[in-house]
Amino acid sequence: MNLSNRVNSVQSSPIRRLVPYADKARAAGKKVYPLNIGQPDIHTPPAFFEAIKGFQKEVLAYEGSQGNPELIDALRKYYETYGIHYAPEDIIVTNGGSEALMFAFMALCDPGDVVLTPEPFYTNYTGFASAINVKVNGLTTKAEDGFHLPGKEEIAAKICDKTRAFVFSNPGNPTGVVYTPEELKVLVDVCIEKDIFIIADEVYREFIYDNMPYASMASFKEAEDRVVIIDSVSKRYSACGARIGSIASKNKEFMSAIMRLCQSRLCVATVEQIGAVELYKTPVSYFNEVNEEYKKRRDVVYNALQKMDGVVCKEPKGAFYVAVKFPVDDAEKFIIWMLEEFEYEGQTLMMAPLEGFYATPGLGKDEARIAYILKSEELEKAMVVLEHALKAYPGRK
Amino acid sequence: MNLSNRVNSVQSSPIRRLVPYADKARAAGKKVYPLNIGQPDIHTPPAFFEAIKGFQKEVLAYEGSQGNPELIDALRKYYETYGIHYAPEDIIVTNGGSEALMFAFMALCDPGDVVLTPEPFYTNYTGFASAINVKVNGLTTKAEDGFHLPGKEEIAAKICDKTRAFVFSNPGNPTGVVYTPEELKVLVDVCIEKDIFIIADEVYREFIYDNMPYASMASFKEAEDRVVIIDSVSKRYSACGARIGSIASKNKEFMSAIMRLCQSRLCVATVEQIGAVELYKTPVSYFNEVNEEYKKRRDVVYNALQKMDGVVCKEPKGAFYVAVKFPVDDAEKFIIWMLEEFEYEGQTLMMAPLEGFYATPGLGKDEARIAYILKSEELEKAMVVLEHALKAYPGRK
Repeated sequence: MNLSNRVNSVQSSPIRRLVPYADKARAAGKKVYPLNIGQPDIHTPPAFFEAIKGFQKEVLAYEGSQGNPELIDALRKYYETYGIHYAPEDIIVTNGGSEALMFAFMALCDPGDVVLTPEPFYTNYTGFASAINVKVNGLTTKAEDGFHLPGKEEIAAKICDKTRAFVFSNPGNPTGVVYTPEELKVLVDVCIEKDIFIIADEVYREFIYDNMPYASMASFKEAEDRVVIIDSVSKRYSACGARIGSIASKNKEFMSAIMRLCQSRLCVATVEQIGAVELYKTPVSYFNEVNEEYKKRRDVVYNALQKMDGVVCKEPKGAFYVAVKFPVDDAEKFIIWMLEEFEYEGQTLMMAPLEGFYATPGLGKDEARIAYILKSEELEKAMVVLEHALKAYPGRK
Repeated sequence: MNLSNRVNSVQSSPIRRLVPYADKARAAGKKVYPLNIGQPDIHTPPAFFEAIKGFQKEVLAYEGSQGNPELIDALRKYYETYGIHYAPEDIIVTNGGSEALMFAFMALCDPGDVVLTPEPFYTNYTGFASAINVKVNGLTTKAEDGFHLPGKEEIAAKICDKTRAFVFSNPGNPTGVVYTPEELKVLVDVCIEKDIFIIADEVYREFIYDNMPYASMASFKEAEDRVVIIDSVSKRYSACGARIGSIASKNKEFMSAIMRLCQSRLCVATVEQIGAVELYKTPVSYFNEVNEEYKKRRDVVYNALQKMDGVVCKEPKGAFYVAVKFPVDDAEKFIIWMLEEFEYEGQTLMMAPLEGFYATPGLGKDEARIAYILKSEELEKAMVVLEHALKAYPGRK
């Protein structure tokens, strides 16, 4: 009565699995800075709560499998502000970006097929893929290069005949990279040449600093039949608990396949969709304020990291993460040591070890992801703690 | 740039795919009785809406992957009323019963593995299974026998070395069967002998008529390491749109695998979980009223069907469905014909054709599922329409 091999190959989340150590540290009276998880402290627009407050029906019925039509309309209008024109039938509401990714993998890959992704990548890509017997291959990018893509030949060389799609997040989780329109164009050309799909996870689209230019994958006309856009309200509106995501594509055969998968699971939560409609009406000024706040936080973390001996990272340009190479034997051991044995003035911190964000074995062992999701003053204190921890850690290289 | 074979094998929902015909019929001015889908018209307990009305936080954060602790506690207490003792770690909240089923299949089956289920079965079992390359084998049951299980040898003979689990709903969807404790005991014995898991979909647990005795699969002590209980608030509290389900098992290795799958998709919608906590506090009197109402409806439909020439069905004892064999060439053609070409005093009706509820090719072609989810007066009118339609249908056998 064994479990399946596939489920045995699904790793426990490197973002969440160290939480019990943090709980113990807190129980022991330490203050723990939770820099492991992308849970922002930014306020959710109150319109979300207002909308659900006004919602009372006699029967809480199934929503349509495609999603609440008002929400689809709101999404359509949101994309219009980026000059991206989707018809209502090009968009389906999903249980967070997570379900959108899982369904996209299902629709494109049979068991043994491959998705290629720049590594380090959002670790749950392997969670979804392993659960359905799809292999994730890594296109290695490096801290020293700010995690930008390699050249055309190197990308092309990683695409084998089992590769069905290139999947990536832009801005990048866990790296904070924002790909330039030029490197995206190269990527588009390679994917057209190799005739594979492009799954673009753009949930951090609004989180870009220093006036970096940004191009959505949906803006490349020449690839519109092979581009799938993954989206979510989680980070954009600090509404992680809503679990409202979406999938969009102009490939009708693909969307009809996704629709069949959606019919199987009936629909997405009705009330959260009602709230999400209002989120999409949030004025642009909200993002300006939020961006300014994150830029400040990024500066605090990056400036502090720059001054730490032996630490490698380039300035991240988007999302709210930075992937950092540390002068330690093993980042996971280092984090557990910080939680179990270390404290500085009663404080310690948690990060996400990066090894599980790589597909290539052996990479990322000395790296961790820091999510800069706390207020600047807190982050400043956390960075002081980190500096002292690095000096005191017995496994320092 | 083809889609995957697996997604091409996922059928469009036989419950939902005829909706466009109904929409057209309505647009043409006909009244359409929607007996295709298990969307009850019973009022959702208002406590659900009260709870979400009172919910306002600054940040709509991720819930834990296991689910809201209060909801898990409420579920634990609910099971206690059935004499079933679960520890908090034996229960995980899911995106409806749908996700619970999909994750259970993933945790138990590798590609090519098999789940065995009495057919006709809840059609989405094949949707979930096909999407992850699992095969559904059907243990055929018949309208003439009220869809009860065959004997021990016949069940055992259907279990091959690829079979990883027996999955079934009790009370049964689409049949309305309530399995007797004795036939469940036989099932338990076979599954122990053959060393396979038992996935019991008990979302209709409260919908039992005529004082039929009911046994939950969780009450069989001898099988507790191999029993997985699927549950949902959708039907029990007429809260289909909440998408709150759960999975429960005393098998710790299994639950730890499910937890890893849940971590990948982060969490279930926060607000709906808040509402669901209150649903589980609904007094028993609610079920008594609801049951009385459904029994009345069952009687209307069953009595009418009994009088129709050539129609075969036994009295359903649970859930709110009846699977019916009609004297027609093709039930799907019959339903489409009713929507497109037929009307009786301006009315027509929709049912779900049953062929897609069978795994064995060729079965169910002349069968359909009626969901008795409308008020008795409406159902009475719908049955008159059906009777006239059967007489007028050119494909009558």
